[in-house]
This record gives sequence, C-alpha cells and structure tokens, in this order.
Amino acid sequence: MKKLLLTGFVPFLEYPVNPSQQIAEALNKEQIGEYQVIGKVLPVEFASSAQVLLQAFADIQPDAVISMGVAAGRDRITPERIAINCNDGEADNSGIRKEDSPIVEGGPAGYFSTLPIRRMVNRSKEHGIPAEISDTAGTYLCNNVMYHILHHLHQSNRQHHVPAGFIHLPASHELAIQMKRNVPSFSLETLQSAVRIMIEELSIK
Amino acid sequence: MKKLLLTGFVPFLEYPVNPSQQIAEALNKEQIGEYQVIGKVLPVEFASSAQVLLQAFADIQPDAVISMGVAAGRDRITPERIAINCNDGEADNSGIRKEDSPIVEGGPAGYFSTLPIRRMVNRSKEHGIPAEISDTAGTYLCNNVMYHILHHLHQSNRQHHVPAGFIHLPASHELAIQMKRNVPSFSLETLQSAVRIMIEELSIK
Amino acid sequence: MKKLLLTGFVPFLEYPVNPSQQIAEALNKEQIGEYQVIGKVLPVEFASSAQVLLQAFADIQPDAVISMGVAAGRDRITPERIAINCNDGEADNSGIRKEDSPIVEGGPAGYFSTLPIRRMVNRSKEHGIPAEISDTAGTYLCNNVMYHILHHLHQSNRQHHVPAGFIHLPASHELAIQMKRNVPSFSLETLQSAVRIMIEELSIK
Amino acid sequence: MKKLLLTGFVPFLEYPVNPSQQIAEALNKEQIGEYQVIGKVLPVEFASSAQVLLQAFADIQPDAVISMGVAAGRDRITPERIAINCNDGEADNSGIRKEDSPIVEGGPAGYFSTLPIRRMVNRSKEHGIPAEISDTAGTYLCNNVMYHILHHLHQSNRQHHVPAGFIHLPASHELAIQMKRNVPSFSLETLQSAVRIMIEELSIK
Repeated sequence: MKKLLLTGFVPFLEYPVNPSQQIAEALNKEQIGEYQVIGKVLPVEFASSAQVLLQAFADIQPDAVISMGVAAGRDRITPERIAINCNDGEADNSGIRKEDSPIVEGGPAGYFSTLPIRRMVNRSKEHGIPAEISDTAGTYLCNNVMYHILHHLHQSNRQHHVPAGFIHLPASHELAIQMKRNVPSFSLETLQSAVRIMIEELSIK
Repeated sequence: MKKLLLTGFVPFLEYPVNPSQQIAEALNKEQIGEYQVIGKVLPVEFASSAQVLLQAFADIQPDAVISMGVAAGRDRITPERIAINCNDGEADNSGIRKEDSPIVEGGPAGYFSTLPIRRMVNRSKEHGIPAEISDTAGTYLCNNVMYHILHHLHQSNRQHHVPAGFIHLPASHELAIQMKRNVPSFSLETLQSAVRIMIEELSIK
Repeated sequence: MKKLLLTGFVPFLEYPVNPSQQIAEALNKEQIGEYQVIGKVLPVEFASSAQVLLQAFADIQPDAVISMGVAAGRDRITPERIAINCNDGEADNSGIRKEDSPIVEGGPAGYFSTLPIRRMVNRSKEHGIPAEISDTAGTYLCNNVMYHILHHLHQSNRQHHVPAGFIHLPASHELAIQMKRNVPSFSLETLQSAVRIMIEELSIK
Repeated sequence: MKKLLLTGFVPFLEYPVNPSQQIAEALNKEQIGEYQVIGKVLPVEFASSAQVLLQAFADIQPDAVISMGVAAGRDRITPERIAINCNDGEADNSGIRKEDSPIVEGGPAGYFSTLPIRRMVNRSKEHGIPAEISDTAGTYLCNNVMYHILHHLHQSNRQHHVPAGFIHLPASHELAIQMKRNVPSFSLETLQSAVRIMIEELSIK
C-alpha cells in the first residue's frame, strides 16, 4: 500500500489550538483511497520545521506529501498553487523573525505544487465544501515547509513521482471562539472531510 | 405543550437557496425543550412578509416567535438586539423598493428583542459554535418582520408574555458555493444545531 | 449666525490617534454654510462623555449638533441612522465595562438621527467621497452620546428645531499605519472635506 | 536622463474606471528623481497586454519598468514580490478565459520583482500612506505582464540592470463609488503621491 505523509503544525502566534494538528493526528493510520496516512505534527520554527518534515520524509519514504496549516481569515479550503523562496513575517515560536530572506540561498523563486489542486478543489465543492485554489501560501512557516519539500523532491529528481504540496485550512469553530478577532470558521468535521476528499483525489487517475 | 413559531425566508436576491427556509422546514414539528416547533416559510416582499407572519401568529397562537434569515458575509450566528422602524435597500422579490420609509407610520423608532439573546449566544459558544449579538438587523425584510411581530405584541400588551425576535444566520456551505462572491459559511448541520441550542434557552429559567 | 456644535473623541482602545478629534479641532471656528462651528473633544468614558456633551450643549446653545467618532474597519463615511438605548462592549478609557445595560433607564429603545443623512450621503458621493447610511452606531460611546443628545432634545421638545446626530469616520491613513491590523483608511483631508460637505447640507432647505 | 516606463491598464470587468490608467497618464512626461516617466496604457487581454508592454520596452529602451494595476478590495498600496507562471481567472476584455495555463511554456515558476519593494513600502508609510508588500499579484493580466517583463529581462540578461516590477493600487474613491460592492478606496491624489514616492526610491542608492 502507498504511504502519504500528512503534516500539521502546533499552535502559534494568536492561535491557541491548531486544526491542522488535530487533523494530522485524527487521520494518522487511516487508509484513504490507495494511501495509508502517516500523520506528523511540525514545530513552528524557521530553524526546525523543514528539518522535521524532511527527516520524516527520509524515514517514511512516502509516495505523497501533503502539509497543512491554518490561515485564519480565509473562508474556504485552499490548496496552494505555489511556494516561494522567501521567509518573512512575524516571529516564530522560538522568537526568530525573518525579513525578505531566501529559504534556500540560490534556489529558484518558486515551485508549483505537484498535487492535483484543481481536481481537489472541484471535488471538495461537489461534496458541498467551499474550496478554492490559493495563489499565495504567504512567507511564514507554511510556505517554508512547502518550498523545502518541493525543493528536496526537485533536487533528488523525484518531482514527477512524489506528489507534494500544501493545503491551508480556515479556522475551526473551536479556534474562532478562542480568538480575539472575528474570523470565518468551519466545523472540525467539515475540515476533516475536505482533507479526506482531497487525499482521495490522489488515487484517481 | 408550548408552541414556538419558527420562520425562515424563501430565496431572494443573489441567494439561490436560503438556509433559514431549510431549517424552518427541518425543525418543523420537532420538540425542543418545552416547545413544539411550528415552522413557516415567509415570502420576501414588503407587502406580504409580515402579513403572512402575523396571520400565522393569529392562527397558531404560539408562546414564542423566532424568525430567521440569512446574512451572507457574517461569520457567526447572530441573534439581533433590535428592530428599527425603517424599510430601505434592494428591491424585494416582487420588485418593490423602499427608501428610508417607516414600517409603521408613527411607530416607535425601535423595539428590543425579547429573546434571551445574551444567554443564547453564550450557550452556542459553549457548544462550540461561534455566535455574537448583532446590533443591526438591517432595513430589509428581516428587520421588517422582526419589527412587525414586536410591534404587534407590544400593541396587544403581550410583550412580556411572548418572547419574540430574530436570528441571522451566516451562509450555509451550499449557499456559499453557489454565490458569485466569497462569503464565510457554516455547514447546515452546524446552523441547525445552533438554532436548536438557542431554542432550548427559551425553556431555561 | 447659527452655531453648530461639532464633537470628536480622544484616542481609545487600539487607536493611538483619533481623526474625529483632529477634525473637531481643525474645523473649530470655521464658518460652513450658515453655521459657525464650535469644536469640542469628548472623553471616552461611560460616566462622562455624555455629561461633557450636554454641558457644552447647555453652554453654547447650538442650533445643530454633529458628533463624530472613528469606526476602524469601515470603508466609507457613515452618518448613523439611529441610536439605541444600550451600553455594551469593551472597557472605556477609565476601565469601566458595560454589558447589555440601558443608557437611560426606561428610555425608548431608539432615536432616529434628525440630520439630513440621505442628502448628506448623496452630496458626499457627488463630491467623489464614498459615503453610506449606517444602521448601527454600535453600543459603545459613539452610540451613547448620540442617544443622550437625541434624548435630551426630545425631552425638552426641541427635536424638530435642533438637528442632531452622529457621523462615523473610517480610519485616517495616519491611524491605519499605526494599527496592528489592516483597515481601510482615507486621508485626513478627504475625511475633513466629507464632514464639511455634510455640514453644508444643514443649510440647504 | 534615465527613462522609466510606467504602465497602467484600461478599465475591465466590474471596473468602469481604472486609477492605474489615470496615474500612468497623469505622470507621463513628469520627472521624478533621476527618471523621466513615460506613461503607457495597456489593454486587458491575454493575447496582447504583454505584447504592447514588450513593444513599448523595445521602442523606449527604459532604464526601469513599473507596471500598475488596480486590486479592488485591498486597503493599501502593494508592490508585488513575485510574478508566477500562470494564467487563470475571469475572462479578459476580449472574452478569453484561461485556467491553470502557463504564461511561458517551460518558463520558471516565478520571478521576484527587482524593484526595491521593501524600501518603497517603508518610504510610503513614512509619508503617511499605508503600504505593504504583497505576496501574490494574482493570475490575471497584472501577474501576466509582470511575469513577461521579468522573463524578458532575464532572457536578455538585463535583470540586474533594469529594475522591473508591479504595484497594485487599492480602488480610487471614484471607482469605489461606481462599484456595486463596497471596497476600501484612496483618493486619486494619495494613490498618485504613493506612486511618485515609490518611483523616487529608484534613484536612492
């Protein structure tokens, strides 16, 4: 059976819970389509997030990689189109802040997701869950790990063999209630269903 | 057993489906707390919406009235605090448009909801569903029917005996997918749970 | 010459500057249409904001009253339609917090603005400045002072002689740059022009 | 004297006027810092926008290129960080619609702007005009022309000699008033000042 590495992040910044962590843990060991899911939770640190992801990749040797993160403020499930070679934004969980700095010195400006993002979005909507392709994963840890995995696959010439990419989730209701500002939110069940539906697309030819 | 008149609206303007209609129909005949729910669906017309509501009120003689409508763009369930004596905004389903015109000539500027809106909001959040008191029901049909029922109860001196008011719902996922612009949305199940939780509050002393 | 009492507020909450204060000070002593402007700046305190306003009203005996406040997040100039009898929301500058409590015990639920708000909005747009009637002044100090002045005029039977009401302003660019979250903003010049245009409407029959 | 090619777009979609066109025309022939501005207005067509830009580039042989477009909904001036190799979205002015299709077959996924975007943003804010780096220029004509000019400069090995990139503008007040939905907006004067300030940064070493 094929293996899918599915990652979420720990809580960070103004987010006391992280639905991407909850879903990575909930779907761990589940079989979805042709894939056995292996869920992992990543730290939110420029120094270690990608290291943990790449180590898990080396250990597990998965056939596909989907990383997830929360983008509070978005009102639909958004598979990302591209990761860009830039770290920028708020301080991470260890207090490190980056500004306009490359993720990989000399690396290409961007890598497109190799997940079937158009089909993922269409299928999610057919199942009644609002979804849309996003054209920016930001410049924080979400973009960082997406860039790193795509760069790694490209460097090792496996970009056509191991689909990889990133899905941003809206806040969960639980998270929205705990935040200071009002944001759109989905139920955790709906978020989880959408991720399951999108993973199923990986098995469709 | 006490009776609750629960109303929704038919589709209107840019909304091809209306979750308030779906919930009024789904909860019809259900028993929630001390109340038997009687669901009704109202037209979206300045000339008849309130008439249909007041006729149903006369026929059913309910012990409480909750009207519902959709407010696409909101990101939580919002019991309304007040109805104001003003019709304004887009044309209704029959093509009639009002501007700055009183609902009831010589009526008071506003009526406060007599539902336990603070408790409704708190209880919804305790159950994990984002909710918030809203300070405006707008000036369209939602506000119109809320004003009419509260005016009617006040005129007949029953404002302290029959709790009445309005709850605005965010878009459902189904509606959000069909709309041209992006709006926050909840699953229909979550919307329905929130309405059920809020109705339960009517039975709590 | 007629006198217009024009009030703004001091800074509060997350707002280190308040364009309503800046405009009340800038237009002080200016003649606009038939009116001499007398600008006053109010505290942001449930215990004293309205007291200061009503004292200024008693001292100056103005022929019209316009209070202003900032509503960061709005994207146009918004004359308010109604003030409601409710204090609620964040703590004020003295640390006092109100929840669902009446402004005037036993007072009516609402008072409509007696300013020519529709003409004010239309004229502002004709001059190229986005404006719109707002149906809620909130439940914080802005609504509080609007309710108090309209109540006072009504109690003293001058509601048809002294036009009074409230205008909410979007953030100024200066304020937007200093805030932690992104909000729409206008230049202070544009905000001031809009207020001037709206004051001019008071002199049009 | 150095030459700057400054482009805007004609009206398109729901935008009956385009402030980027107005500013390209207004600043045409103006001298800003070391640069003489040459303003050009581009069509909104996948088949010709970039052609017109590249032809102007060939004719004028400018020392810098700044393209502008409107992004109604944004609340600050946003120099773009990156252009990506993707055409997608609504139909253009000639009715052509693209979905997930490369701008340049086999071209790199993205090109970073070679304008001093961080300094442009900081300087604009120092002058009191809200600005922020944007991480996505979208996938419509704005991104298209930005990708094309950066690709052309890279292919001809002039990417280090001719700074080039894109600035997205919020709606102007004039545009906001004409649109059906509410969007943040700046005065045309403020938009123009921001563009002038950002052009000045090109002359700072």
